[in-house]
Amino acid sequence: MISYTPIGYVHSPFQQTVGMPIQAVAARGVPGRIELAPEYHAGLQDIEEFEYLILLYHLHRIEGASLTVTPFLDHQSHGIFATRSPKRPNPIGLSVVRLLKVEGLILHIEDVDVLDGTPLIDITDVTHRLRKN
Amino acid sequence: MISYTPIGYVHSPFQQTVGMPIQAVAARGVPGRIELAPEYHAGLQDIEEFEYLILLYHLHRIEGASLTVTPFLDHQSHGIFATRSPKRPNPIGLSVVRLLKVEGLILHIEDVDVLDGTPLIDITDVTHRLRKN
Repeated sequence: MISYTPIGYVHSPFQQTVGMPIQAVAARGVPGRIELAPEYHAGLQDIEEFEYLILLYHLHRIEGASLTVTPFLDHQSHGIFATRSPKRPNPIGLSVVRLLKVEGLILHIEDVDVLDGTPLIDITDVTHRLRKN
Repeated sequence: MISYTPIGYVHSPFQQTVGMPIQAVAARGVPGRIELAPEYHAGLQDIEEFEYLILLYHLHRIEGASLTVTPFLDHQSHGIFATRSPKRPNPIGLSVVRLLKVEGLILHIEDVDVLDGTPLIDITDVTHRLRKN
């Protein structure tokens, strides 16, 4: 068993999954913010140098996993690991968001496709982590 | 508190952190394999369509977090969220690996930069998850 503690919460215009962008392109320009817990403040040093951030977060409203799913606009089922469906064995989400501004513990972000109140597990930078692409 | 269960383990040539590739480019061509737990087998359906996979895994040998770190070949400290240092508040790792072949529960992979025996939390596809890039 692996245990993590939220480092903060993501706020977005989405109060429920109905109406949320299913494809990331539909989240372009959607504003939101991260409210980091005060004890992690020092971890933000130099984060403003990055235009994009990778967020890892807990899909807290997902109940039950499904090993095969039929994605939106698809007609065939696929294994969960070949999809971005949230009904994952470990309900962890990954999004790339644009970082607009840092104000103390608040990170103003854009391209947000997560529910309001989503517990944040980690923030990491796109360039370092995905420089292989 | 957020709890996850390993879906399998990553195997690599690296038995200890000493000598491991620090930068992902140094992991190019390093072979490894994922051994998925049998109960998740159905989740692999169609995974072979992807050339690259994103692995999320638990950094099980990391002890203690540090909110500021001085990365390899750097001379200045940075906030942990602006780096890929493993000493994260939630020790979760993200790697992009090349998928070579699937044999039952075994995924043969390349470009592996994780320790042998690393608990795997999730597998997801690069194209779906990072199509914004």
